[in-house]
Amino acid sequence: MHGVAAIIIGNEVLTAKVVEANGAHLIRRCRERGIPLVSVHVVPDEVDFIVEALLLARRRAAAVITSGGVGPTHDDVTVRAVSLALGRPVVMLPRMQAILRAAWNGEPPAEAMRMAEAPEGAQLLESSDTRFPVLMADEVYLLPGVPELFRSQLEAVLARLPGEPVVLHTLYLRARESDLARPLDAVAAAMPDVAFGSYPTFDDAVDYRVKVTIEHRDAARVAEAAARLRHDFPADSLVREG
Amino acid sequence: MHGVAAIIIGNEVLTAKVVEANGAHLIRRCRERGIPLVSVHVVPDEVDFIVEALLLARRRAAAVITSGGVGPTHDDVTVRAVSLALGRPVVMLPRMQAILRAAWNGEPPAEAMRMAEAPEGAQLLESSDTRFPVLMADEVYLLPGVPELFRSQLEAVLARLPGEPVVLHTLYLRARESDLARPLDAVAAAMPDVAFGSYPTFDDAVDYRVKVTIEHRDAARVAEAAARLRHDFPADSLVREG
Repeated sequence: MHGVAAIIIGNEVLTAKVVEANGAHLIRRCRERGIPLVSVHVVPDEVDFIVEALLLARRRAAAVITSGGVGPTHDDVTVRAVSLALGRPVVMLPRMQAILRAAWNGEPPAEAMRMAEAPEGAQLLESSDTRFPVLMADEVYLLPGVPELFRSQLEAVLARLPGEPVVLHTLYLRARESDLARPLDAVAAAMPDVAFGSYPTFDDAVDYRVKVTIEHRDAARVAEAAARLRHDFPADSLVREG
Repeated sequence: MHGVAAIIIGNEVLTAKVVEANGAHLIRRCRERGIPLVSVHVVPDEVDFIVEALLLARRRAAAVITSGGVGPTHDDVTVRAVSLALGRPVVMLPRMQAILRAAWNGEPPAEAMRMAEAPEGAQLLESSDTRFPVLMADEVYLLPGVPELFRSQLEAVLARLPGEPVVLHTLYLRARESDLARPLDAVAAAMPDVAFGSYPTFDDAVDYRVKVTIEHRDAARVAEAAARLRHDFPADSLVREG
């Protein structure tokens, strides 16, 4: 099993009070780093729902990244949910307590100290690039939802994960998707290691009707698939490629 | 049980080949219509994963809306996944076959006819506002991923679902979130029917540090919660509200 699954925790996203930014950023960065992204699940600040999302994500991906729900208020329930999903009690991390005391120049209020709570056995990834260390337990990374903090911590997480950039080639075609389906399905069946995508558009402002994508780690394999499709697609259907 | 859960099906989103647009649009429209949105789950074009996402979504929401995977190509597996999740065989809908024949002015290729496949017992919501009818089975609505088609079909679905617009009021505060947490938690505990949110920012370009949101169907209840918070929050912390 490999790849990352993301869980975006926040009623504010589901109720359109905040435009979802962390998931979109994570999708782009995983792509750039060549780390497969298995799913992105936006869920409310509810322990039960987060636990179910975590159990599903952990069955599907080697690492899970959560966004949000790690602050000091009543709706910050991510640590509790992750602890439940991992079957561990919630404990206080002495190292994080020390970091919070340093940030507050003294004893923070009890609510702020909640940010030192963690699933038992959790570790802190400390880095000079992040304001606070990244909290991780069993390959679940608990990132804050505030975009500035999320982004810097995400880089620290992605740097730990194996990535392999993928070569993407796109054919732009003027044809009905259903007229391309038979040759595309045949090539996809003959080259099961290559990822193909087919995306129709109804936008009259563009010069094609269907975009077919080809992806593989190996550029030669992508070129071979492109050659086969060029040969098998209806004559004159190719507008351009790139 | 009420509300909607959305499942966005598409490797193209997870691999950043396409910027996710349908989920964001659905979030905004649910908000405008006052329909609670329970979750948004972006998953790959894989039957197993879609089935698991559907089973979870159906436990959580009265209606499920899927986006994508209903075209004529090998990666269009949504009908198969929904049929499996509902425990129904895949059948051909004669009415949809007739609509496809009309659209093609004759017999479409076999690949196009795949678009008449549906879970047994599925219904078509026909409307003059959509290019093709909406396919539904057991309160699962199978929408196309192409944004233009998704949007028009979404309106036909949302028109069927009960909505109740919510009143939102926001307090903008200059204070540490942890200094607001105790009064906010106390008011939230005293008014469990009201939804509160607390969103810190580290953006120096804005005039506040934390945004606290209050939501309820009843404007009087929102005003009461706002009055309590204004009274209980630290003196001079309120920058503005609206």
